[in-house]
Amino acid sequence: MAELTDVDRQDELDSLIREIRDTLGDHDVLKGDDDGERGSPPIEELLRDPDLGRLARKIESLHAADIAMLLESLPRDERLVLWDLVHSHRDGDVLLEVSDSVRDTLIEAMDREEILNVAATLDTDELADLAPDLPEGMMQDVFTALPIDDREKLRFVMSYAEDTIGALMDFDLVTVRGEVTIEVAMRYLRRMDSLPDHTDKLFVIDRDGLFEGVIHLKTLLLNDPETIVESVMETDVVRFHPEDSARDGADAFERYDLVSAPVVDEVDRLVGRVTIDAVVDFIREASDEERLSQVGLSEEEDIFAPVRKSVRNRAPWLAVNLVTALVAAQVIGLFEGSIEKLVALAALMPIVAGMGGNVGNQTITMIVRELAFRKLGGGDIRLLYGKELKVALINGVVWGGVLALVTFLMYQNAGVSGVMLAAVTLNFLSAAFFGVTIPILRTRMGRDPALGSAVMITAITDSGGFFIFLGLASLLLL
Amino acid sequence: MAELTDVDRQDELDSLIREIRDTLGDHDVLKGDDDGERGSPPIEELLRDPDLGRLARKIESLHAADIAMLLESLPRDERLVLWDLVHSHRDGDVLLEVSDSVRDTLIEAMDREEILNVAATLDTDELADLAPDLPEGMMQDVFTALPIDDREKLRFVMSYAEDTIGALMDFDLVTVRGEVTIEVAMRYLRRMDSLPDHTDKLFVIDRDGLFEGVIHLKTLLLNDPETIVESVMETDVVRFHPEDSARDGADAFERYDLVSAPVVDEVDRLVGRVTIDAVVDFIREASDEERLSQVGLSEEEDIFAPVRKSVRNRAPWLAVNLVTALVAAQVIGLFEGSIEKLVALAALMPIVAGMGGNVGNQTITMIVRELAFRKLGGGDIRLLYGKELKVALINGVVWGGVLALVTFLMYQNAGVSGVMLAAVTLNFLSAAFFGVTIPILRTRMGRDPALGSAVMITAITDSGGFFIFLGLASLLLL
Repeated sequence: MAELTDVDRQDELDSLIREIRDTLGDHDVLKGDDDGERGSPPIEELLRDPDLGRLARKIESLHAADIAMLLESLPRDERLVLWDLVHSHRDGDVLLEVSDSVRDTLIEAMDREEILNVAATLDTDELADLAPDLPEGMMQDVFTALPIDDREKLRFVMSYAEDTIGALMDFDLVTVRGEVTIEVAMRYLRRMDSLPDHTDKLFVIDRDGLFEGVIHLKTLLLNDPETIVESVMETDVVRFHPEDSARDGADAFERYDLVSAPVVDEVDRLVGRVTIDAVVDFIREASDEERLSQVGLSEEEDIFAPVRKSVRNRAPWLAVNLVTALVAAQVIGLFEGSIEKLVALAALMPIVAGMGGNVGNQTITMIVRELAFRKLGGGDIRLLYGKELKVALINGVVWGGVLALVTFLMYQNAGVSGVMLAAVTLNFLSAAFFGVTIPILRTRMGRDPALGSAVMITAITDSGGFFIFLGLASLLLL
Repeated sequence: MAELTDVDRQDELDSLIREIRDTLGDHDVLKGDDDGERGSPPIEELLRDPDLGRLARKIESLHAADIAMLLESLPRDERLVLWDLVHSHRDGDVLLEVSDSVRDTLIEAMDREEILNVAATLDTDELADLAPDLPEGMMQDVFTALPIDDREKLRFVMSYAEDTIGALMDFDLVTVRGEVTIEVAMRYLRRMDSLPDHTDKLFVIDRDGLFEGVIHLKTLLLNDPETIVESVMETDVVRFHPEDSARDGADAFERYDLVSAPVVDEVDRLVGRVTIDAVVDFIREASDEERLSQVGLSEEEDIFAPVRKSVRNRAPWLAVNLVTALVAAQVIGLFEGSIEKLVALAALMPIVAGMGGNVGNQTITMIVRELAFRKLGGGDIRLLYGKELKVALINGVVWGGVLALVTFLMYQNAGVSGVMLAAVTLNFLSAAFFGVTIPILRTRMGRDPALGSAVMITAITDSGGFFIFLGLASLLLL
């Protein structure tokens, strides 16, 4: 299983994608339609073709992550033919690597037997990752096909929510007893065929399975073989509980530079481990999800997804925006009389609203970032309000002043300029106040402070900005 | 050096912070002023106080990352007293862990000699991380104090930009020759005091220092001691070049689940290694920077930063927004006559602009995400334009239709409703077109597609939305 050894794999992958598309195009094997029914010939027939056979062998030599990348880069029909070319013993690894939306299309194209075969090649923690994407009812079959022991583990992992340590953990533990010598431990290791990936340490347990400490592989290598494990093991190590938050776990991995860490239950019995690769995947996915959720998207869309799926995916945010925009329109409607008398107000009001939105979003971003790595005490919060309001006041006077000047050059109306300065400053202050308040309140309510905060602050600075500006103008100018 | 072993360290840290603030408050050691001059008594005097001595011992027992967290959580004056309490041999490790803005305040409070002492405790790759934050001229002193060999390494690391592998790499290599037996390799290891962190494999080189392959620690442990290293080493491994992009490197670590990887020069000579902890830090920092840059902030601001620094930090984005808002105001100004005649236009125009902005930002987010993990070919781009325009057309008709209905209920004017439907649809199509075009063009120009794209699309959908809506209304209704 070869990695593409050059880190700039892009060129290699690009030429592979071109080769695949050319080969598939030449051989007219693309007869899929949009409903997932495919008329392409069975795989045995495909592989009799020398070009396709050569392609299959080339793919066979790739790392599962690279095969996944190829599948993600191909439109649906070509993707499914390539999926047929992937050796079935690789299917499980590849399914674990592809994105959720591509995984859906691949699983749709598999029959019951194929899915059960794939399930049989996976570890329980990997099965748990795959489970939500399996067709209805199939999970029960997969479950029944497992040995009792694995069923228990699978049920355990699946009982924890996606954002907990329980969902990140695996059971590939190498354990050793504290009272043996390093020599004995090493003889024990040598009897194993291989060690699980990311085994940087062995877990030391007592006769009841209670966690006692860890011993690094390098400690085994550096010490005299006669040394007793207990005497060189580390006991002061970070340990997780299955119900701990995955985000806190990721922080601990980053902070303490961990490669693997033990997971223990409430009586300190060792139940599993978390490894850095699961943590890195979690960090990546969490930041991807955050990016998408900022514009109201779920993660289930790739560029080859059907149009109707995309329309559905993008609807909720547009619906929310529709409502907030209508509220803003109503606010403006209140002042139609003023706008009729002084139409310059219509041109200027979006400036007040828009710049207020910027100030609010800057404040929210700072607070969310702060909240992401620690809880803010009462003193901190007072300090934050004070500081953000001060910054907003200075910015309001500075930028409001610039705008007042520009407005004066445009309209030669000192009253309009004065209202501009006052409205920008007030809207900045409101933006700063709600920019601190919204994420802190959301955190207090146990919600994600980032999610939806931008939409809320923009609604406030829009409607509020229109109200402040048009209200001041109506009071002072007309 | 103890980690806080419970993963939910928040409570422990909170109570420590409270304890620190209480102790420092009680002892009236806070005499700092804003200019960085501090009047607190020398450290020896402080430590004679039993409470402060106890605090210093407690801090001494913490992991450097936890001390960093405490420093970040304290306002400036308390932070500097705590910094005095940290044992000077820990200073270097702590400086490497704190955020950039806090690091600045700590270094400001150190004198020349202290800084040189800290520098002497750090590895060259760590020094390179710290270098940009040292005061002018100090770097030359640090440089001169280094052994020739380390100077060379430091110059090497510092010659690479922040976002390259060269900046992530370190020199903590454990190398072995391929022709020796595992027994010999292990005897060699046992003569070392300790192995560098994240040593999961040894690097196999030939007599000229050329990279030949790697041998995992677990391979050493699992195989017969008589085995020749060459016969069990892996040769098909991912290797990096110092000038490779750090982002590509991070992708490779994630894809191939690496813990460490070799860095080689153009003739395949082994020059260093990259480890997963540096990669995780890079991923975190990159995503943090991205989040901040979306609202035009640089990373140099924490909540305890002085107000004037915050005002400066937030100015560029507000300046850009000022210009785009003024352009939009000019566009509205073109149609003042129409607004005077039909003032409902003023209330409705922000809806068209705002929802167009949403559509544009959704499209940009999808494209940037796609661009983040592969290059898009010509066929992909055509497909993307086709798909995004179709999605925009459907959304435009659907949401434009809803708005037309609501508008009709508000104003009983079929003409206004028709213009609303048409303007929303056209602005959505424009948003989708530029939402695809902007990030792709920015990538072609070698720029970060995420950075600034949101500002650009919003400027287009605002001014464009006003123009389309008011223009159509002027043509068709008046």
